[in-house]
Amino acid sequence: MALYSVSRQLTGGSSKSQLALTLCYAYCSRSYSSSFREERDTFGPILVHSDKLWGAQTQRSLQNFDIGGERERMPEPIIRAFGILKRCAAKVNMEYGLDPVIGKAIMQAAEEVAEGKLNDHFPLVVWQTGSGTQSNMNANEVIANRAAEILGHKRGEKYVHPNDHVNRSQSSNDTFPTVMHIAAATEINSRLIPKLKTLHTSLHSKSIEFKDIVKIGRTHTQDATPLTLGQEFSGYTTQVKYGIDRVTCTLPHMYQLAQGGTAVGTGLNTKKGFDVKIAAAVAQETNLPFVTAENKFEALAAHDAFVETSGALNTIAASLMKIANDIRLLGSGPRCGLGELILPENEPGSSIMPGKVNPTQCEALTMVCAQVMGNHVAITVGGSNGHFELNVFKPMIATGLLHSVRLLGDASASFEKNCVRGIQANRERISKLLHESLMLVTSLNPKIGYDKAALVAKTAHKEGTSLKEAALKLQVLTSEEYDNLVVPEKMIGPSG
Amino acid sequence: MALYSVSRQLTGGSSKSQLALTLCYAYCSRSYSSSFREERDTFGPILVHSDKLWGAQTQRSLQNFDIGGERERMPEPIIRAFGILKRCAAKVNMEYGLDPVIGKAIMQAAEEVAEGKLNDHFPLVVWQTGSGTQSNMNANEVIANRAAEILGHKRGEKYVHPNDHVNRSQSSNDTFPTVMHIAAATEINSRLIPKLKTLHTSLHSKSIEFKDIVKIGRTHTQDATPLTLGQEFSGYTTQVKYGIDRVTCTLPHMYQLAQGGTAVGTGLNTKKGFDVKIAAAVAQETNLPFVTAENKFEALAAHDAFVETSGALNTIAASLMKIANDIRLLGSGPRCGLGELILPENEPGSSIMPGKVNPTQCEALTMVCAQVMGNHVAITVGGSNGHFELNVFKPMIATGLLHSVRLLGDASASFEKNCVRGIQANRERISKLLHESLMLVTSLNPKIGYDKAALVAKTAHKEGTSLKEAALKLQVLTSEEYDNLVVPEKMIGPSG
Amino acid sequence: MALYSVSRQLTGGSSKSQLALTLCYAYCSRSYSSSFREERDTFGPILVHSDKLWGAQTQRSLQNFDIGGERERMPEPIIRAFGILKRCAAKVNMEYGLDPVIGKAIMQAAEEVAEGKLNDHFPLVVWQTGSGTQSNMNANEVIANRAAEILGHKRGEKYVHPNDHVNRSQSSNDTFPTVMHIAAATEINSRLIPKLKTLHTSLHSKSIEFKDIVKIGRTHTQDATPLTLGQEFSGYTTQVKYGIDRVTCTLPHMYQLAQGGTAVGTGLNTKKGFDVKIAAAVAQETNLPFVTAENKFEALAAHDAFVETSGALNTIAASLMKIANDIRLLGSGPRCGLGELILPENEPGSSIMPGKVNPTQCEALTMVCAQVMGNHVAITVGGSNGHFELNVFKPMIATGLLHSVRLLGDASASFEKNCVRGIQANRERISKLLHESLMLVTSLNPKIGYDKAALVAKTAHKEGTSLKEAALKLQVLTSEEYDNLVVPEKMIGPSG
Amino acid sequence: MALYSVSRQLTGGSSKSQLALTLCYAYCSRSYSSSFREERDTFGPILVHSDKLWGAQTQRSLQNFDIGGERERMPEPIIRAFGILKRCAAKVNMEYGLDPVIGKAIMQAAEEVAEGKLNDHFPLVVWQTGSGTQSNMNANEVIANRAAEILGHKRGEKYVHPNDHVNRSQSSNDTFPTVMHIAAATEINSRLIPKLKTLHTSLHSKSIEFKDIVKIGRTHTQDATPLTLGQEFSGYTTQVKYGIDRVTCTLPHMYQLAQGGTAVGTGLNTKKGFDVKIAAAVAQETNLPFVTAENKFEALAAHDAFVETSGALNTIAASLMKIANDIRLLGSGPRCGLGELILPENEPGSSIMPGKVNPTQCEALTMVCAQVMGNHVAITVGGSNGHFELNVFKPMIATGLLHSVRLLGDASASFEKNCVRGIQANRERISKLLHESLMLVTSLNPKIGYDKAALVAKTAHKEGTSLKEAALKLQVLTSEEYDNLVVPEKMIGPSG
Repeated sequence: MALYSVSRQLTGGSSKSQLALTLCYAYCSRSYSSSFREERDTFGPILVHSDKLWGAQTQRSLQNFDIGGERERMPEPIIRAFGILKRCAAKVNMEYGLDPVIGKAIMQAAEEVAEGKLNDHFPLVVWQTGSGTQSNMNANEVIANRAAEILGHKRGEKYVHPNDHVNRSQSSNDTFPTVMHIAAATEINSRLIPKLKTLHTSLHSKSIEFKDIVKIGRTHTQDATPLTLGQEFSGYTTQVKYGIDRVTCTLPHMYQLAQGGTAVGTGLNTKKGFDVKIAAAVAQETNLPFVTAENKFEALAAHDAFVETSGALNTIAASLMKIANDIRLLGSGPRCGLGELILPENEPGSSIMPGKVNPTQCEALTMVCAQVMGNHVAITVGGSNGHFELNVFKPMIATGLLHSVRLLGDASASFEKNCVRGIQANRERISKLLHESLMLVTSLNPKIGYDKAALVAKTAHKEGTSLKEAALKLQVLTSEEYDNLVVPEKMIGPSG
Repeated sequence: MALYSVSRQLTGGSSKSQLALTLCYAYCSRSYSSSFREERDTFGPILVHSDKLWGAQTQRSLQNFDIGGERERMPEPIIRAFGILKRCAAKVNMEYGLDPVIGKAIMQAAEEVAEGKLNDHFPLVVWQTGSGTQSNMNANEVIANRAAEILGHKRGEKYVHPNDHVNRSQSSNDTFPTVMHIAAATEINSRLIPKLKTLHTSLHSKSIEFKDIVKIGRTHTQDATPLTLGQEFSGYTTQVKYGIDRVTCTLPHMYQLAQGGTAVGTGLNTKKGFDVKIAAAVAQETNLPFVTAENKFEALAAHDAFVETSGALNTIAASLMKIANDIRLLGSGPRCGLGELILPENEPGSSIMPGKVNPTQCEALTMVCAQVMGNHVAITVGGSNGHFELNVFKPMIATGLLHSVRLLGDASASFEKNCVRGIQANRERISKLLHESLMLVTSLNPKIGYDKAALVAKTAHKEGTSLKEAALKLQVLTSEEYDNLVVPEKMIGPSG
Repeated sequence: MALYSVSRQLTGGSSKSQLALTLCYAYCSRSYSSSFREERDTFGPILVHSDKLWGAQTQRSLQNFDIGGERERMPEPIIRAFGILKRCAAKVNMEYGLDPVIGKAIMQAAEEVAEGKLNDHFPLVVWQTGSGTQSNMNANEVIANRAAEILGHKRGEKYVHPNDHVNRSQSSNDTFPTVMHIAAATEINSRLIPKLKTLHTSLHSKSIEFKDIVKIGRTHTQDATPLTLGQEFSGYTTQVKYGIDRVTCTLPHMYQLAQGGTAVGTGLNTKKGFDVKIAAAVAQETNLPFVTAENKFEALAAHDAFVETSGALNTIAASLMKIANDIRLLGSGPRCGLGELILPENEPGSSIMPGKVNPTQCEALTMVCAQVMGNHVAITVGGSNGHFELNVFKPMIATGLLHSVRLLGDASASFEKNCVRGIQANRERISKLLHESLMLVTSLNPKIGYDKAALVAKTAHKEGTSLKEAALKLQVLTSEEYDNLVVPEKMIGPSG
Repeated sequence: MALYSVSRQLTGGSSKSQLALTLCYAYCSRSYSSSFREERDTFGPILVHSDKLWGAQTQRSLQNFDIGGERERMPEPIIRAFGILKRCAAKVNMEYGLDPVIGKAIMQAAEEVAEGKLNDHFPLVVWQTGSGTQSNMNANEVIANRAAEILGHKRGEKYVHPNDHVNRSQSSNDTFPTVMHIAAATEINSRLIPKLKTLHTSLHSKSIEFKDIVKIGRTHTQDATPLTLGQEFSGYTTQVKYGIDRVTCTLPHMYQLAQGGTAVGTGLNTKKGFDVKIAAAVAQETNLPFVTAENKFEALAAHDAFVETSGALNTIAASLMKIANDIRLLGSGPRCGLGELILPENEPGSSIMPGKVNPTQCEALTMVCAQVMGNHVAITVGGSNGHFELNVFKPMIATGLLHSVRLLGDASASFEKNCVRGIQANRERISKLLHESLMLVTSLNPKIGYDKAALVAKTAHKEGTSLKEAALKLQVLTSEEYDNLVVPEKMIGPSG
């Protein structure tokens, strides 16, 4: 079994001869990984590559969960959050009697994890035990071995013990939800909200830049009464602004940490006050207002906070889908579309057709929005399927949310930088469409009455002429009268 | 209506004085429904309105599941399917010894249920026990009372017994999945597929009608190389055709009936051969190829057949969403949109703007598609959450699928009749856009080379002129040469 | 019913002879509905049953959108909200010059709509134009005809005009989103939140009632360290409490009304200040803090507020699914399940097996939760698919949300009343399971060390004995020592 | 801009000093990548690392779509499928006149791509242009440069031209859907179906192994009539078998290739017969029955085939969720759960509690199922949002499906190997529960009548005794009579 795991790590092969070859290859040709050490857990010994810091439980998970390949590794923000948490735990545990020599070494090793320096030592995939136990043990094992090294001891000797020292006063059942919350809150604050704010600012600038450009409105995709292009963009601006509010509103639940609940929420094997102290330590470390969860049973058994936040992301996705769709349709053309917007050209659209600009940033963004909607369903299904004291869809829920956060943030930034910022109004086209529109007839109602106005519009529509031509032909008013009455600029707000 | 609420309040009420008031109201002010009879089950006696055929268990469900109101009643196709099933069960049970006098009365009463004549006696909502037991008992009770009446006995006396006679050899756990399958298969065959076929025929006719109309193609919403409007509609036609195939492909699993599995799939309390005979009887009654389920345990514990069929409906929804979206965008305008299609005017779009046609049929259809996608998720969640020998999301799953089937069928028919059938091509507009397009430059590549062709296109784009004007200005070819080379009609297929 | 179908067939029919037959039927056999009146719109005249208050545009929609049948009618809360809105509009319009005689009649007629008295005059289905224009016109027509009657005029004569008077200063594009918000906010406040609060109170009472019952915990569905049953219920309590917070947090966006935006958000054809006044009037009428929307373009073109609120409902559904699942599993049995809870018996579970209690309230609730998750996807798809100045998935979005609100509210109330309130702890069973559990061995660690403790547990597991038996057999401690150390009651919190 | 891209590739940094450092780092310390070459497209020159085979368009996409990081790279099966397609295209193009020297070099280079040897040269992420154009150009550029090298020419010189040679007769708009289909069909056939078959076989073996173990059935999670454990597993077996059928049934649409449709489906710039020949070549290369798509317009503009197949995967996910849930509940315990199954112990469940086996394989599988359901929604949203001649959610749709296929396949294999294969029945426990059950009373009905049988059961339930004890106490039959009548083994099928 242990041997098999070695061969899988190297080649995924299954037959004995292949195994032999693999081992030969491993031993002979890759000097930096040519040796293995023995690690142990309650199931007995198992071989681990000597250049890896992980231990027995990580190695077993690698063997038992060959699902999805490297692409499916636990997301980096989770790994880093483990670094933060374990550092804080060591700090608080020293207050409760942990040997400070060991405690400080753990803190140093955990800091390296938090900084992403030991990412290569976290090989486990998302699709493991649903409590994330194996990733918690991965963190414990890596930090224990690294801390031991710092103190001059060898890997695998458990001078620093993964359970007794690194995991002290903790259980996977409270650490994993804690790192879920740390990772999500951190990513939302550092990656998503700033990028949404930049997008908001950029859309807002456009709405000011375009505030005097009167254009045709469209409802049901059909010509309607006019508005300014700035007003149109103000709608998008408001959507993004509310989106930021929405996700921000969900953060209070995200700032609640499960740590201190241990195995089932009771806090067995931890000390009174540990939960409050560790939340404070994490808050200090991250500069975010984390607190201990009001109810630890809820915090382990459900992940409603994730379902809730994912709901906010889903709303943002719906908003951005609408905005990106509008922008690509308003920018459609160049000759046979609506053509009101000129979108930045970032790359050749086609080797055949110069002038063809594909709204590729809109496309990337709308694809992201669809994925966020999908992730939301996955998170909802996972969130609703907990049993008793523990929800065991944790790694999937965490990964789905982090995926959505990352994609929405990055795509918003890309969309802002490579599209919104450079949007220009095609004033000539906008003006042409506006003045061809039949709905301007509305302005004539007070002067010539609805029936005659309708006749003017119907005549123009039937004969394919302008409203003015129809009005003059029907002799309902003079050219001067028409020009005085039909002024789109006066149609963009309520009357005084 | 009043009756219903009285009866619900009557027994759902908590205080005695409320009961007294309610009864007073019922007895005094509405003489035509002033009396109740006592019905009984193992929980004891309970009052039921004397003008209703249902019995004690139905009455209890009415009280215990006050969820959603009348709008949420079990869908009629389920009620009718119970009529079919109970009729067939009586027929087969007579072969196994059921008293033919009683058996025939049950058959007659069940026929009335199958014909929808007794719909008012099925008051229960979807949101009841997840096995549909209460609706099965509703059917048993109504048929038993009605059969008793046919034989000259009174309601409530159980001359014909709901369990011993009507439900003989059956359990809710096999009857409810059976009626789910009967209802779904019947509705799909009678309501959905014919309407999709009509839509397919209509789209196909349009694709032939429009086969010679060359128009600009659009990719990424941007101008692209030409195709015919008929080719464009042939894509839609194919989508609908495949949609019919898709849902048809799922029917074999839908034709498998759980009947004969009784409580847990073993068939306890039924007779050997009962399952095969009853499936044959249902097949004969409905003219559909129902068979007994290959594995009754799967048939009770899971509803994968519904998840599968819902997946086909979800695909059809995705297709129709795309088609309806295209049609409303191609018909956008009349002056400031794409304007290539003229959609039928069915109602005033606005009291202000004559000529405004809103693509309302597209809107109804796309709303339906969104709902079908949502129902699909509900069905999937329900389908995945079975426990042990029984899935208890049955009424929700059945109702969701029937909802999707009905909406897709009706909306397809409405869309066909009130939109597709009357679509006209705006040939003038199509031609104008086509000839303004810059991508026709592609035809010049073989003659003047890519670089010069690109220069022509870029010049035209920059200066806002036609390709021909640009080509002549740049003196890369003559007017005659241009006219010979740039022929969109030759760009709509591979070269010979 | 007959009337309805006659009227639909009448005008939706294709052949003249069918019309003749239909009219004959209508005139000859049903004297109370034997006459029609002619109503008109810009499409010309159309027949409407004389006993109906609606007008031409409603009649056309009936014919053009034969989708789903009566079950799919626009939900009553929307109709009532139209009554509220039109009443407020008349009131504000009188301030801006509407003839007070007509204005007051409109207010009176609208009040009847708000009270649900005219529900029968709102026959249109959800699956109509995506702006809800036809339901807005339905409201305008019914109120105009009713107001005219109040003033002594005949239906159809337009003494009170549906557009000029009832719809004055309004457009479907701002009225429909306004009634969506009024209906949703009202239903959430009156129907959902109070029922969730009752459920919360009931769960909280149980958590106090059960606070001293120590039981086995379960993680990964496997035996774990103990907690109290009260602690377990406190998790559920917290979930529901947070759910109430979540939906409440979304209300500020729901309180923003689009009214005053008219056709595209600019407020054309309305007066300055109209938007603020009408929001104030609605607030006064409903006693809810409605305000005018900060940005009318967003309010018409997107329904992010609905996607957001639906996200909160989706989270509540995930919570309730978890709670209901736990309760049915903890109540499973009576002999072969976990059997820790005794659920109320509300109806016969089976005619064969006395003592069988099916957790039917859990089943109804979990089915509701699945539907809410599905509706959420439908709403998200609809919300993301707006175009330009108008989202045209409005009726579907509104209906989906109202459906979810109603179902969650009613099912929570039913679950509380018929299940939670009556839950009893099976103390004997809980105690038996607790003391059989092997994980109590944890308490021995400090005394005899992990290795010996492990040996005790493994021995007990292997030999199927109790921990104490194993401990005594292995002679690691005395009976008295064991009894002093193994005290589950001390394992339900952190140590001092 | 070009420089920026360099820095991003290396570090993602943005400031000038960081850039300087980065360049220094790049130039000084990594000799194998210290130089850049210039590549060109119609937008002009751009720097590319000299050790990379890609060209200008790939480089631009890298800069313009900084979304999600390396984890989000286009999935390997798509890259490999490009290798297959480009190889086949070169082969067919040679028939139509492509210079065989160049053609063969392309074939050789494409083969390397198909074998995965050039994966490092495909850096683009999923979130790019929605047509996948940039990945198509990535393939064209890499193959062109590699083919040029094979022929002794330098990278970047375009001796073999990415468009004119490698992409000859093709457009991104037909190549990308083609590789989507190749990748999906290949993965389904090679990775998913075999693993599902293994799972099916294993479940089937268990159903035979357990065929004589009579156990309590459970409906509504409550005790019900008995069945064999083999029968229970036969339900799971059937679900998996049908799942294989379901996904297989969708393959005919997946085998239709868009290739030959070029830009909009017409096949402009390709030759008659090219489409048929290339499908045949792909079929030969892959040993799968690919054919040319019946309608190329549908094949570009929609991805219904993916929505359909994803629907089948969604059904499989629902099935596996149910199965895994059952198994973990049946294996719950060891002392305080149902305990009927003994699941393999693969890793320590807890360092505290020996004997605790967590059903971690069930957890990984159910998390996968939730993700597949989520991906299905994403694919549906993407599939429904195509515009005109092109759906531009292609990379997201393809990636979502391949993700689902990979996860379902791998998780099924892991579940089979590490769980199902080793499941043992806990015969003692099963027997104990069976004989304690009250529902065996059903067997007494014929002998003592329903009423007395009910009394027996109710007495046993109330007094907590066995049925037999109650029966003897009530003196309704003798011990011998009881033992003759109550035989669970006779309750597992219909009577003769």
